[in-house]
Amino acid sequence: MAKKLTKRSEDYSKWYNELVVKADLAENSAVRGCMVIKPYGFSIWEKMQAELDRMFKETGHSNAYFPLFVPKSLFEAEEKNAEGFAKECAIVTHYRLKNDPDREGKLMVDPNAKLEEELVVRPTSEAIIWNTYKNWIQSYRDLPILLNQWANVVRWEMRTRLFLRTAEFLWQEGHTAHATQSEAMEEALRMNGVYADFAENFMAIPVIQGVKSANERFAGAEETFCIEALMQDGKALQAGTSHFLGQNFAKAFDVKFATKEGGLEYVWATSWGVSTRLMGALIMTHSDDNGLVLPPNLAPVQVVFIPIYRGEEELKSITKVVGPMVEALKNSGVRVQFDDRDTYKPGYKFNEHELKGVPIRIAVGPKDIEKGTVELARRDLLTKEYIPQSELVSTVKALLEEIQTNLMKRAQEFRDAHITKVDAYDEFKELLESKGGFLSAHWDGTPETEERIKKETKATIRCIPLDNQQELGSCIYSGKPSTQRVLFAKAY
Amino acid sequence: MAKKLTKRSEDYSKWYNELVVKADLAENSAVRGCMVIKPYGFSIWEKMQAELDRMFKETGHSNAYFPLFVPKSLFEAEEKNAEGFAKECAIVTHYRLKNDPDREGKLMVDPNAKLEEELVVRPTSEAIIWNTYKNWIQSYRDLPILLNQWANVVRWEMRTRLFLRTAEFLWQEGHTAHATQSEAMEEALRMNGVYADFAENFMAIPVIQGVKSANERFAGAEETFCIEALMQDGKALQAGTSHFLGQNFAKAFDVKFATKEGGLEYVWATSWGVSTRLMGALIMTHSDDNGLVLPPNLAPVQVVFIPIYRGEEELKSITKVVGPMVEALKNSGVRVQFDDRDTYKPGYKFNEHELKGVPIRIAVGPKDIEKGTVELARRDLLTKEYIPQSELVSTVKALLEEIQTNLMKRAQEFRDAHITKVDAYDEFKELLESKGGFLSAHWDGTPETEERIKKETKATIRCIPLDNQQELGSCIYSGKPSTQRVLFAKAY
Repeated sequence: MAKKLTKRSEDYSKWYNELVVKADLAENSAVRGCMVIKPYGFSIWEKMQAELDRMFKETGHSNAYFPLFVPKSLFEAEEKNAEGFAKECAIVTHYRLKNDPDREGKLMVDPNAKLEEELVVRPTSEAIIWNTYKNWIQSYRDLPILLNQWANVVRWEMRTRLFLRTAEFLWQEGHTAHATQSEAMEEALRMNGVYADFAENFMAIPVIQGVKSANERFAGAEETFCIEALMQDGKALQAGTSHFLGQNFAKAFDVKFATKEGGLEYVWATSWGVSTRLMGALIMTHSDDNGLVLPPNLAPVQVVFIPIYRGEEELKSITKVVGPMVEALKNSGVRVQFDDRDTYKPGYKFNEHELKGVPIRIAVGPKDIEKGTVELARRDLLTKEYIPQSELVSTVKALLEEIQTNLMKRAQEFRDAHITKVDAYDEFKELLESKGGFLSAHWDGTPETEERIKKETKATIRCIPLDNQQELGSCIYSGKPSTQRVLFAKAY
Repeated sequence: MAKKLTKRSEDYSKWYNELVVKADLAENSAVRGCMVIKPYGFSIWEKMQAELDRMFKETGHSNAYFPLFVPKSLFEAEEKNAEGFAKECAIVTHYRLKNDPDREGKLMVDPNAKLEEELVVRPTSEAIIWNTYKNWIQSYRDLPILLNQWANVVRWEMRTRLFLRTAEFLWQEGHTAHATQSEAMEEALRMNGVYADFAENFMAIPVIQGVKSANERFAGAEETFCIEALMQDGKALQAGTSHFLGQNFAKAFDVKFATKEGGLEYVWATSWGVSTRLMGALIMTHSDDNGLVLPPNLAPVQVVFIPIYRGEEELKSITKVVGPMVEALKNSGVRVQFDDRDTYKPGYKFNEHELKGVPIRIAVGPKDIEKGTVELARRDLLTKEYIPQSELVSTVKALLEEIQTNLMKRAQEFRDAHITKVDAYDEFKELLESKGGFLSAHWDGTPETEERIKKETKATIRCIPLDNQQELGSCIYSGKPSTQRVLFAKAY
């Protein structure tokens, strides 16, 4: 709290790292690459969870829970998936510790408690789930299966950053099974649409829905759909993915079903997920040099009251006026806090709630009591105004909606201003360094070209937008013919 | 579905195992000792979670999330705690798989990817959390810390049973830090009270609040409080525990705070948890030979409508009548399902919903349409009655409350009839085998006597009830003087 945040213009990455810690969202733990999600950060994640869970249920999905561990033999069954995750897996090899005979009071792994088969801590659950679905699916009557799981997963990343890339993270993973290819494809697209809806209408983060190039596809998928967001520093962030898995997992785990017509066919699959990475997207879309900026939908505290007083008597008379206002707001569904801690001064509280992104701050002093007003400050624009106490509830309710809308609008304008059509590779490279953002350019469709561009510029194909226009052109790198532009960007 | 359940009187344990699987609650997975919680079972668990979470927040707690892994050096810091869990820990030793050169398409643990320090998959989180609290607590102003975490934990149990004892299970663990001993003690007792309230008023499971003997205490606790329930087979089940941890973890992790008076003191701690084990308690408290019996509070479906019809025309006219009833019930907050699947006959549906414990079943046939009635069957008593359609909503709402109350009353009568005062060891042994239940007997207070009784009879001291009367007597085993009775039972 004491020291100011690094400015975004000085060092965006440092600003982010400081903000996450100072706003009490998360911190690094004693375990390499694993974070502690602090209560304030977790309460924002809970709001995301609740809304997503509601949307999943509304689209016909139920929750279930599958084991944390995947036996190695199951893990390796779908080869592409296994290959994609093998290099970053935490492996359980033993099931017991014993006293270390050489070091008093210390423990050691008991060599006699070695597992017959090693267990992989799930990096994703397709393998264990499809091994289970095998027993659940016999006939077309058993389909579709529409399940979701809220869980922790582990991917042993070498370079980690709070929320954006951590060895352990929290996520939800949907896993569905279908009788037909088209039904599975519809499901994958539907859930990508649910993610886009959630990002835009709940988190106020504009996203582009698209499909990934083969290089960027989920290991084991036939097609990966995604929502791509743009951060303030011009880098893209993949905020969610939805995979059409074809029959790959059904074949790996031999999951067939009797069709209505009496045939026997492999089942079609999808999987889709978003994670605590969304917290990173939230922070980097809206926040400023004063700290976090939260869309009202996600703010644990939407309105904070701060009394301005000298001595107990003044605090008492302010409390008498603020009390009913707090109650009235609570009763109309607003999340409100009265910060009457006497251990901190108003200035300190102003900074703290600004840092934590509380959408509306209301200061009430002796003069306000006289005049029947309050001073209301909005976090998104950092503006202040005096309003009559009698209009408080209606003003606050309207303002919360306005802030939510304004944040989306602001982010959308920024994003739209950072999609640039480029037709020359030199300009492409220059723009990547100067302006950043999404570069809309023709591509010859080959993984080789994509690889070379990535190697030379660090830009990857973020997606081919779902609503892409077909347009003849020539690849920005190879000059070969192309039928559409794709979106390149440097990415988190 | 096809085969009937084993009767409880024939083989209680077999009945339980069959019921869990047949009612679609959970099943064993490919991972030794780990279960899959199926959608129906999980939706019951979700209801428990939601209510507990509400109660925790109402008592001032927030949620947070701490890492899945505990570095071995932290794990061993609190020696008693470490000793208590060392023998049943899953240990991560490596962070990468690689292609097995000897077996095409197979993977092996990469010996070059050995961790410098092994990681214990959390069996409980005191160690990792107190290592974190060390950085959060400097002064009395930082206290109390009142956190809870919903998480998965792993204890490598040798003999596992669905919900009751699994290698991985889901739970919540509260971890609080306090400035004074009395405040921590109050918190431990308060949360034990919250558990009792939840068990009795939400799950309809009567429990005895008590304190554990030293032998049965949580490893690392100074005092363990618990709620103990009684299952239909006369065995006790520990349904939740709340621990006063003293300053043990503060000392192990050197967590001191500056007092208001300028001193420096170790912090006082509690932890408390309930787990998916509660699902086992739920099943074994209320269910019968026909299947699951669910208290309305926990039933994913509280009311199911089953149409009795021949041909599409009849179904249509029934649907026309049932539709508005379903809507009316939904609008008044009842969870209702219209089972109009045409792939199954009514008899099959009756059995299925009975097996799954739906509290109220409503059958509607052509005669009901004529008469303006429905046939309403209640799951707890297996009784049926006809009621006018016009009174449906009020009848159903009253009946759901009555079923909830009746289940609690029935369980309480059973439990109370199975607390037996015993003053002779022979009678004690005899009653354990014949009647079971809680045996209220004098004990000399020594761990040695407790151990011997356990060895000879398999009965353990479940708890010393919190509201115990002081009463002079002599130990049922040693004959030594005793000041109070304690509750013995065989237990899950």
